Amino acid sequence: MRTTSVGIFKVATTGPGDVSGLMAMIGSGAIDPKSILAILGKTEGNGGVNDFTREYAVAALCTALAPQLGLTPYEVERRIAFVMSGGTEGVLSPHITVFTRREAERPAGLTGKRLSIGMAHTRDFLPEELGRSAQITETAKAVKAAMADAGILEPADVHFVQIKCPLLTSERVAAATARGNKTATTSSYSSMAYSRGASALGVAVALGEISSDVHDEDVLRRYDLFSKVASTSSGIELMHNVVIVLGNSASSASAFEIGHAVMGDAIDAPAVVSALNSVGLGVAPQTSADRALVNIFAKAEASPDGSVRGFRHTMLEDTDISSTRHARAAVGGLIAGLAGTGAVYVSGGAEHQGPAGGGPVAVIARLSD
Amino acid sequence: MRTTSVGIFKVATTGPGDVSGLMAMIGSGAIDPKSILAILGKTEGNGGVNDFTREYAVAALCTALAPQLGLTPYEVERRIAFVMSGGTEGVLSPHITVFTRREAERPAGLTGKRLSIGMAHTRDFLPEELGRSAQITETAKAVKAAMADAGILEPADVHFVQIKCPLLTSERVAAATARGNKTATTSSYSSMAYSRGASALGVAVALGEISSDVHDEDVLRRYDLFSKVASTSSGIELMHNVVIVLGNSASSASAFEIGHAVMGDAIDAPAVVSALNSVGLGVAPQTSADRALVNIFAKAEASPDGSVRGFRHTMLEDTDISSTRHARAAVGGLIAGLAGTGAVYVSGGAEHQGPAGGGPVAVIARLSD
Amino acid sequence: MRTTSVGIFKVATTGPGDVSGLMAMIGSGAIDPKSILAILGKTEGNGGVNDFTREYAVAALCTALAPQLGLTPYEVERRIAFVMSGGTEGVLSPHITVFTRREAERPAGLTGKRLSIGMAHTRDFLPEELGRSAQITETAKAVKAAMADAGILEPADVHFVQIKCPLLTSERVAAATARGNKTATTSSYSSMAYSRGASALGVAVALGEISSDVHDEDVLRRYDLFSKVASTSSGIELMHNVVIVLGNSASSASAFEIGHAVMGDAIDAPAVVSALNSVGLGVAPQTSADRALVNIFAKAEASPDGSVRGFRHTMLEDTDISSTRHARAAVGGLIAGLAGTGAVYVSGGAEHQGPAGGGPVAVIARLSD
Amino acid sequence: MRTTSVGIFKVATTGPGDVSGLMAMIGSGAIDPKSILAILGKTEGNGGVNDFTREYAVAALCTALAPQLGLTPYEVERRIAFVMSGGTEGVLSPHITVFTRREAERPAGLTGKRLSIGMAHTRDFLPEELGRSAQITETAKAVKAAMADAGILEPADVHFVQIKCPLLTSERVAAATARGNKTATTSSYSSMAYSRGASALGVAVALGEISSDVHDEDVLRRYDLFSKVASTSSGIELMHNVVIVLGNSASSASAFEIGHAVMGDAIDAPAVVSALNSVGLGVAPQTSADRALVNIFAKAEASPDGSVRGFRHTMLEDTDISSTRHARAAVGGLIAGLAGTGAVYVSGGAEHQGPAGGGPVAVIARLSD
Repeated sequence: MRTTSVGIFKVATTGPGDVSGLMAMIGSGAIDPKSILAILGKTEGNGGVNDFTREYAVAALCTALAPQLGLTPYEVERRIAFVMSGGTEGVLSPHITVFTRREAERPAGLTGKRLSIGMAHTRDFLPEELGRSAQITETAKAVKAAMADAGILEPADVHFVQIKCPLLTSERVAAATARGNKTATTSSYSSMAYSRGASALGVAVALGEISSDVHDEDVLRRYDLFSKVASTSSGIELMHNVVIVLGNSASSASAFEIGHAVMGDAIDAPAVVSALNSVGLGVAPQTSADRALVNIFAKAEASPDGSVRGFRHTMLEDTDISSTRHARAAVGGLIAGLAGTGAVYVSGGAEHQGPAGGGPVAVIARLSD
Repeated sequence: MRTTSVGIFKVATTGPGDVSGLMAMIGSGAIDPKSILAILGKTEGNGGVNDFTREYAVAALCTALAPQLGLTPYEVERRIAFVMSGGTEGVLSPHITVFTRREAERPAGLTGKRLSIGMAHTRDFLPEELGRSAQITETAKAVKAAMADAGILEPADVHFVQIKCPLLTSERVAAATARGNKTATTSSYSSMAYSRGASALGVAVALGEISSDVHDEDVLRRYDLFSKVASTSSGIELMHNVVIVLGNSASSASAFEIGHAVMGDAIDAPAVVSALNSVGLGVAPQTSADRALVNIFAKAEASPDGSVRGFRHTMLEDTDISSTRHARAAVGGLIAGLAGTGAVYVSGGAEHQGPAGGGPVAVIARLSD
Repeated sequence: MRTTSVGIFKVATTGPGDVSGLMAMIGSGAIDPKSILAILGKTEGNGGVNDFTREYAVAALCTALAPQLGLTPYEVERRIAFVMSGGTEGVLSPHITVFTRREAERPAGLTGKRLSIGMAHTRDFLPEELGRSAQITETAKAVKAAMADAGILEPADVHFVQIKCPLLTSERVAAATARGNKTATTSSYSSMAYSRGASALGVAVALGEISSDVHDEDVLRRYDLFSKVASTSSGIELMHNVVIVLGNSASSASAFEIGHAVMGDAIDAPAVVSALNSVGLGVAPQTSADRALVNIFAKAEASPDGSVRGFRHTMLEDTDISSTRHARAAVGGLIAGLAGTGAVYVSGGAEHQGPAGGGPVAVIARLSD
Repeated sequence: MRTTSVGIFKVATTGPGDVSGLMAMIGSGAIDPKSILAILGKTEGNGGVNDFTREYAVAALCTALAPQLGLTPYEVERRIAFVMSGGTEGVLSPHITVFTRREAERPAGLTGKRLSIGMAHTRDFLPEELGRSAQITETAKAVKAAMADAGILEPADVHFVQIKCPLLTSERVAAATARGNKTATTSSYSSMAYSRGASALGVAVALGEISSDVHDEDVLRRYDLFSKVASTSSGIELMHNVVIVLGNSASSASAFEIGHAVMGDAIDAPAVVSALNSVGLGVAPQTSADRALVNIFAKAEASPDGSVRGFRHTMLEDTDISSTRHARAAVGGLIAGLAGTGAVYVSGGAEHQGPAGGGPVAVIARLSD
């Protein structure tokens, strides 16, 4: 059985085009660029349709890594999974998390399952497939492929599935229309929700969280159907889904462990505490000598019923600020308070990712052994 | 010695013009309209210069209360202190908190100091006085008058001082210019910060938190000068400061107790917990049988140095969303998570209210005795 | 045959709650409050779901007019048609236009048709009827009733039909869902477009601009179906459509004339010039001694195909600013430039009001005779 | 005497990272990359502090041009003047205008002065020099150098001076403070106005429009001091001013002519018409057989006195949308209407560029001879 070791490096950025931190770590030998599997980032755009900080960050990273890898920037983008989540509202702080993987012997004394990472991607979708069963089914297939890639055998060992998925633009809608087909929505902004939702349902299907009998009309309607570990972000820069599975595996020799919990609503502090506890951590300030917080990955959304624990929220009826920005700011404030840092990955738009109004929260800890 | 009893009623609203909840409580006899001293509200505007939800809410309340009090709406606005803080970003929920006061015997068995409330106001300011020493000095005088009104003898018993203060408009700046005077700033938005800052410094002077030797140029610059209990909100609808002092007093017969703590930064969860603990409460869910959370009053701001615990935030450089909206959303998310409800009063713009980037947080609990 | 005279008064406002200008004109006798039929206003909110400046303005006007009319504010709101269009982006200036009507002899020497005004309203709609054929059909009926009320016999004499129509809120959607019915959309913001669109199609049906064979699925899709004179605004404060017809009538003795043109796209300057010319005016500065510009009423929208004359616009993909705000600002800038004043009524959301991306533009001139 | 020929190419973009149009023209031989002197672009960000579309566009262009020029991207950025103006509100359309220059014989039959272009730049500024006399003086020097570079002898032949200038960030303010110096403002957003204003005053000094006796305190205060041809944009990506002078010269052999006018306020349609007329064009649709519109370059701003021709505007008191976005949208709508295209360069922030509330408007026409 192949055993791997995973490295994780959290690097603050001074702007979406800033690659200096990563380059310094490559220069010092701390990171071998050839081992980079995925980069998850928080960039400081609006997280909406016209958030160009995501593609700018990816372009900057590809351009910088190209000579390191002996590839063109375009080839770098095909090799490494880049997931940029726009929106660092409130106390959230722009940063990237670099995941590396290499073949490694598992030391004899190593106990328990350790963090492992796997990847896969779907075929390109047609605009009219977004937010519908085609996207669900193809995503489920890719999740299983990514689990295999990670050496994770049991769905229970999967703690976070990050997916990057497409959105609709005016041009893409027009292309579908020209073929005589209707898209799930004609609004770019709404399409982001559809794509995120269908992708999350694909995760739920793959992990057996829900039955595979999901239909087009369930997307963005049957909010009782959800995954507890899916995190999906839509972006303008691709037409297929990229799937990254994070979990614990007996075939991993890494120094990290991952766990998760599910926030039942946007103010579910106990769930955040539970996720921290699941990897041996507590609330800030951290006191454990042998475990350190690496990062937290969470999804946030405005409760679609317009209230949180019986009190009305105004996120969905605000024409000035999109609800995803509101939700990231609020959930980011809570998680940052409990974690003791704003450099956490809180991403908006949690359709079918956790229960309505809530969302998954995963924590990675570094073990000192 | 006069003894009083204070009543506190938190009422959710369905919009800035909604007075139905309050009217129902008056109709049922739960609230005697003649006893209403102050109403603090969170309304769902942007909290900025053009946030008309504040004046709309005040107008609606005055119009509704006028026949109850046998006064004109204008007279109601002079009689009751209305403080509407705009901005219910994220999970924050629009509501009003109604404070009543009446003469009352203090029961023989009542132990300890109990919540008391006092009010005062300054003279009208000239536009060129806003954000400067005149506003500081006059505010300090009004704070002392409000303490006396509340029957609070010691500064240590003051736990929250809410102030409503003016802002500059193009017309007000022009009026000052026409008199040959310069205002502290010509920007309406900036003037809100100046006015809030000078008012908070007035509280600090009154309570002996800083020396009275404060100068024009210290406002918005000397952030080491601050009050731990001041909460100031600026609004377009007045030209004087209204001061409301909340504290505990041996001459109060109320069923409530107030305490406070100071958040050192926007993610200072332990300070929120400490404020809850100071009145015998814990984090949500509340388990105490004899004490219940009434409301939390807090101030939030973007750290002026651009970072929180070493990580960059982007609130001050976001041209799409004002930093006060970011900060309310984030701090509101944290407090709501720990309190278990979004119906809390988190107000933006904490200049000289707590340390730079932090702010006061006060908690009121109801005792079951 | 009944003959009427119409008065029009354009009054600048200093804020949504400002009624001082109107009250002064009533005080001076210039306006008889009993003759007020309708008030169209531009208020300075965002024009979106959470634009409370509209209802605030209406509340302030009703409260101020109530004693003048010997009615309660609620009764005033039922008697006078208030249409507040939110959004004074760019150079647009907040103001109200007051329309009065009284019985009047038509002077012997008066030539030609003159401005007349008529009103009607539909029944209340269910949430699930908004944006669908029920709203179209009922609106068409109301348009014909309003024409009769105005003494306008020919559709060709109708130059502007202003409609105020409802929108969906989370609560209204929930009410429909509870009845087992689906609404046209679950998004409040999107519902504004559906309601505006169906209402405009109702005008087109009534005036014979399109056949009455319009279906649910044509709304917001068949943009080749439109009215050249409809102007519809949605607001949270009502559940029925209010219809105001403006046109020229031989039974009117007013000093005004109205004409219109249709902007083919958002930069159609010649259409604006044509509308001005249709009532004997030119572009600013006005040089006619015997005719003066009173106001311009226009609709603006972002072209749904994402471009204007072959060049891409970014209005529909901007997550920071809603496309209606963009469109009002741009079209407002053009009309204000040609009219020589920003105190014009440019309203957003021109679905089925003029061709896709364009919209009606009506001009009222005062004749000196 | 050296004679040059200038080429101008307007290229629509599909996003800030889109270089395909320019690359296609280079590929076809229409543009010689070695002849590119400057690229002025409109990108679709917010035009504020956190508008990363500008630097993204520059990075994409430099990366694409580098192999064409045999330079590194960094060297390309030093060689070509890139001026990206963020903000395509309303009907404005993202595009770049590429200016090329090469040595060329002036044909014998060529009559009159023709478009010429010249460039220069200042030294790097310290943060505390921005918005002050150092920036004014250095800019004036650079303007004269750029005139000489363009072969323009008379100030009257200068019709547009585009300047790219720095802004302050939290870090730059901190650096100045650490040196014991105060910056003109501590707000990044405000610093953009200071830097634009001082740069424009530098143009006015260089061209003799105002005396050289300008002081720190005149910046953003003495709005009677202005240039009629300056257009300045601030960006985070540089610390010096880049100056591009456009005018007509007898030593130019180009096919273009440039003229200008000054808008007295944001609705000054006659000034736009005058600028079109100055190069032999009229309002759209263009009917001249021998002259064609190439592009219009204009500055827009919200009138600092809060009104336009006596009517209040709300741009300066809008906390949701910055006044520069409002102004670009409105002025862009007017110019696009008169020009017949939204692909025009309208840039925000016209401090000391034209009279208060107005701004320069320059037009370039292509002659068919």
